[in-house]
Amino acid sequence: MLAIHGSSRANGNTEQLTMKAMEELDVTHVHLRDHTIQPIDDLRHEPDGFQPVEDNNDHIVKLMLEHDILVFSTPIYWYGMSGMMKDLIDRFSQNMRDTRFDFKGSLSEKKAYVICCGGDNPKIKALPLIQQFNYIFEFVSLGFAGYIIGQGNKPGEVLNDQHALQQASELNKVLKNSLK
Amino acid sequence: MLAIHGSSRANGNTEQLTMKAMEELDVTHVHLRDHTIQPIDDLRHEPDGFQPVEDNNDHIVKLMLEHDILVFSTPIYWYGMSGMMKDLIDRFSQNMRDTRFDFKGSLSEKKAYVICCGGDNPKIKALPLIQQFNYIFEFVSLGFAGYIIGQGNKPGEVLNDQHALQQASELNKVLKNSLK
Amino acid sequence: MLAIHGSSRANGNTEQLTMKAMEELDVTHVHLRDHTIQPIDDLRHEPDGFQPVEDNNDHIVKLMLEHDILVFSTPIYWYGMSGMMKDLIDRFSQNMRDTRFDFKGSLSEKKAYVICCGGDNPKIKALPLIQQFNYIFEFVSLGFAGYIIGQGNKPGEVLNDQHALQQASELNKVLKNSLK
Amino acid sequence: MLAIHGSSRANGNTEQLTMKAMEELDVTHVHLRDHTIQPIDDLRHEPDGFQPVEDNNDHIVKLMLEHDILVFSTPIYWYGMSGMMKDLIDRFSQNMRDTRFDFKGSLSEKKAYVICCGGDNPKIKALPLIQQFNYIFEFVSLGFAGYIIGQGNKPGEVLNDQHALQQASELNKVLKNSLK
Repeated sequence: MLAIHGSSRANGNTEQLTMKAMEELDVTHVHLRDHTIQPIDDLRHEPDGFQPVEDNNDHIVKLMLEHDILVFSTPIYWYGMSGMMKDLIDRFSQNMRDTRFDFKGSLSEKKAYVICCGGDNPKIKALPLIQQFNYIFEFVSLGFAGYIIGQGNKPGEVLNDQHALQQASELNKVLKNSLK
Repeated sequence: MLAIHGSSRANGNTEQLTMKAMEELDVTHVHLRDHTIQPIDDLRHEPDGFQPVEDNNDHIVKLMLEHDILVFSTPIYWYGMSGMMKDLIDRFSQNMRDTRFDFKGSLSEKKAYVICCGGDNPKIKALPLIQQFNYIFEFVSLGFAGYIIGQGNKPGEVLNDQHALQQASELNKVLKNSLK
Repeated sequence: MLAIHGSSRANGNTEQLTMKAMEELDVTHVHLRDHTIQPIDDLRHEPDGFQPVEDNNDHIVKLMLEHDILVFSTPIYWYGMSGMMKDLIDRFSQNMRDTRFDFKGSLSEKKAYVICCGGDNPKIKALPLIQQFNYIFEFVSLGFAGYIIGQGNKPGEVLNDQHALQQASELNKVLKNSLK
Repeated sequence: MLAIHGSSRANGNTEQLTMKAMEELDVTHVHLRDHTIQPIDDLRHEPDGFQPVEDNNDHIVKLMLEHDILVFSTPIYWYGMSGMMKDLIDRFSQNMRDTRFDFKGSLSEKKAYVICCGGDNPKIKALPLIQQFNYIFEFVSLGFAGYIIGQGNKPGEVLNDQHALQQASELNKVLKNSLK
């Protein structure tokens, strides 16, 4: 299992909630804040197509391809995923055309979870984000296995969201069973 | 009027559609691809708060504050705004705490339009993006005056989307009248 | 072409907007307020399945099957379609199991438009309704050819919504061409 | 607490899930299938306004006004609430103008939950329904305290949805505490 963390800060609400769901599980963690992902340069329609980019995108793509379960863990910034995570997702367009990988074919055998936290009524206002992730996963045939929306603003506040904690603990059980 | 272009490529569908809506109008254009906007480093809850960032965010904030009508023009990348535009939006959190500006107060007197184009059934699949922009604008009390969703994949295809072209030409009329 | 009107009042905003889009076209109109459609009695899982219902549902189903283009014209009541139209849609579950019709097979060769009007910021707040119609049409493989959202509260107010009127006139052109 | 059941069948998935959430609580149950609610006749703009309707709407309005917590429990029919429940909601427009009640004022002091079940990927495809309920509750200033989306098609299948059951049991705890 691979957890991709999109937060710019360590140990924020989203990360705390995600770690609850990952307790005692064998998980590879990658924090986007420790890597550089360039915004996509959309060269799909140029004669020479996409050009190699000097950043850490390849590294994260390889991690994605090596794991069966992907957890997209992002704080809700302005009712969407963080810009860092969006930059990673935008690069999917390039990955799909990169002959070194079978990006889409490989993703289609995996499944994904989304864990996100926000401070402004996220159980309603993050629903467009969940719908967006659903479209993203559909496009690459990645199974959308579930999502958790946590409420929290100041670091640690999500620990007061009993509902989200319960969902995290339940996801933890499901994952433990599925990995047996 | 300020048009903020979020596309990574020049003269793509979104830009063509936006230029239709801007014809013969006095518009300042800013292309995010010509500027560097760092992803936000969320220091809201740190004792010292946000720190100055060396990039072009200030420049674009100033442009935003100087104009009365803001047009957010973004291609639909993966059912959302481009990562570059998301990085700009994420920085709003920092702008709102920056004592050099009255960011939120100033925005609350302006109005905004969204123009976006995508290739995969955007008139349905961009609706979460419109909902997200609505939440964003609500948060900063920026009036959401309208949106246009264009259909197009290869450069120029949007010119076949009669519906979007008509909306652009109608918006053009409205703007010409309002600027008289 | 068949226009199914879901309003409880004659000549309301939705109907006026729909009539603009239907001008000079050969359209069959059916007004749900002139018919009785019982709410569905969900007997899918009963041994004997659905039972015949004494109302006008059959009549409307037959009209639907006889026409190639279906226009669902509904006022936005409480951010959704009218209860009368919802009752009609709910009965689809029964129609699909009714051996007298090839309901789903037949719909899959048609296409549909949605025209709706509401008074409370419908261009944003009707988006969930559009998403719902999209799921409905997907389920029965009915092509979703387009939608118009009008703004209006008091009867006739939609005639001030230039944007919706323009869309109606453009749809009118498209339909005239497609019916040639 | 009042639970308003919108299903046409007894003991279906939505009802089973709702009963889990209501266990050992003092709840008034009203089943719309046992009552007649006429679709609204929208007379808002007629000189004489709304006219009395001979049905059970008044009875249910009185129940709503007498309870502090309202649970809207509806199967997901065609990605929306049941037509019966929609008819009840549509009548809110009439209730708000009925001088015998202080409908809106009274609701603004209550809070509401939504419990819904469906068979076709409801955790994604019921999100527009949740957004619709949110707009409904906002309009009447009724606090939206939470929602549960269950997965189930054949009667009883929801009992396999561990996630929904857990949410129901957690809601049960919250309600027990709040009613102490």
